[in-house]
Amino acid sequence: MILGAIEAGGTKFVCATGDETGNVFDRVSIPTTTPAETMAAVDAYFKAHPVDAIGIGSFGPIGVNPDDPKYGYITTTPKPGWGDFDFLGHLKQHVDVPLYWTTDVNEAAYGEAEIGIAKDVPNSIYVTIGTGVGAGVISHNEIFNGRTHTELGHMRLNRLPGDDFENNCPYHDICLEGMAAGPAVGKRTGKAGKDVAEDDPVWATVADYIAQACVNLTVSFAPDTIILNGGVMKQKQLFPIIREKFAAYLNGYEEVPALDQYIVPAGLGDNSGVVGGLLLAKLALSEA
Amino acid sequence: MILGAIEAGGTKFVCATGDETGNVFDRVSIPTTTPAETMAAVDAYFKAHPVDAIGIGSFGPIGVNPDDPKYGYITTTPKPGWGDFDFLGHLKQHVDVPLYWTTDVNEAAYGEAEIGIAKDVPNSIYVTIGTGVGAGVISHNEIFNGRTHTELGHMRLNRLPGDDFENNCPYHDICLEGMAAGPAVGKRTGKAGKDVAEDDPVWATVADYIAQACVNLTVSFAPDTIILNGGVMKQKQLFPIIREKFAAYLNGYEEVPALDQYIVPAGLGDNSGVVGGLLLAKLALSEA
Repeated sequence: MILGAIEAGGTKFVCATGDETGNVFDRVSIPTTTPAETMAAVDAYFKAHPVDAIGIGSFGPIGVNPDDPKYGYITTTPKPGWGDFDFLGHLKQHVDVPLYWTTDVNEAAYGEAEIGIAKDVPNSIYVTIGTGVGAGVISHNEIFNGRTHTELGHMRLNRLPGDDFENNCPYHDICLEGMAAGPAVGKRTGKAGKDVAEDDPVWATVADYIAQACVNLTVSFAPDTIILNGGVMKQKQLFPIIREKFAAYLNGYEEVPALDQYIVPAGLGDNSGVVGGLLLAKLALSEA
Repeated sequence: MILGAIEAGGTKFVCATGDETGNVFDRVSIPTTTPAETMAAVDAYFKAHPVDAIGIGSFGPIGVNPDDPKYGYITTTPKPGWGDFDFLGHLKQHVDVPLYWTTDVNEAAYGEAEIGIAKDVPNSIYVTIGTGVGAGVISHNEIFNGRTHTELGHMRLNRLPGDDFENNCPYHDICLEGMAAGPAVGKRTGKAGKDVAEDDPVWATVADYIAQACVNLTVSFAPDTIILNGGVMKQKQLFPIIREKFAAYLNGYEEVPALDQYIVPAGLGDNSGVVGGLLLAKLALSEA
């Protein structure tokens, strides 16, 4: 059995082959240009590397509800050419194997939940804080979706007293993404996050909003584990600050797991998505 | 088939009998005093009114995870005598029928989801805003729990500019319950909510926090319907204000159902809990 994975991001697509334990045999990175060009490269990859099933995680928003006429589509993205693109429909015309379709963050969440840092618990949330903020929720070992997928990057939080930063989101006066994602760090400091000193006070501000988000995830989903990944979280000094602020905000209201096992980095690093894709391919096969 | 329901609140317990379509045959209200006294009355009720199964919704926090040694318990409530009380264990010694155990708000959420206002959709959230704020989430027609039940009344929101009200919660500097539940309205105005004029500006403030909570529920769970019930929501003028503020805060970021069908009052009024209990009894029977 050879499994395939697609991690479809707004900047690049990763296509890979591997096995049901998450071993990656081969991978290629394809720039995200136009659907015609990028998808032709995807089709060619899986023609050259035949697989038994493919797990796909896509940037969004996407249609994830099988009853929705836009199921399988990338829907309202501002990315030129990709709005209203029938991703799954296209793939079905080019590969004749079972496909699993979900968001890029759900795919990564599934990888972490199956064989990553959350493999021993049934309920976990994977949050990536980078160019934007995305999150995938695993509930009782399955991907959680409602009417559509979650958009947890846009949850409202309490503006810190004295923080007059203009929320970096075209839609909202305050939200996690607008206050704490990479571009917000850039605007707050005038440099790229990786060039900001480890002890710059901006990190305490960023950590505060992330801690508030962890409180809201806790009282909403009661997960066993919250996984923080993405470019901003490469600043490892954030973890202890986030845990400390989280504890102060939750203030003992409810019992949670030990914080160094509750708010944690990804176990698979930058591989969460591709590995998740392989495991979702396995799931698609078992359900086919 | 005769079904039983218990709606166990901090002030009173309601015990009832009825059928699998939610018809209530009989009900009694029992004051919540000590476990010994209150439970003796519950036992006596179901001795006098034999049933085939009972659905129980209890005030909390409670243990809802079958793997937890405190499953079936009321756990850390400050209510004298009820902390660490083995509710389900007690009942099992006195009635020999299948039992379904969940929170009072999950019970009400299930009633609304099965035969109430949300009967036609798979994903709904029931929020009661009264003495406190509680919420139950129905996902794909089932009660959602994580590691434990949700505590959505304690989600963090953005403090309104100029609102210097001290959050009315012993744990948090800001949360939905502390800013917008009945006692907060009382402290803000110096009178009981029912005595506050319909056009008092306090209602716009309360509606704002509830609207923010609806945004967070939307981006978290992507429900089909958000049901608002409880004492505060008897102020019907709140609904249009909440919908208007919700729309302004979400600001078109994602598509949601028509707002007058999305943010709605309960369909079963004050009966959501008891009816939910009967239907959970039916579920317990089918799973037995």
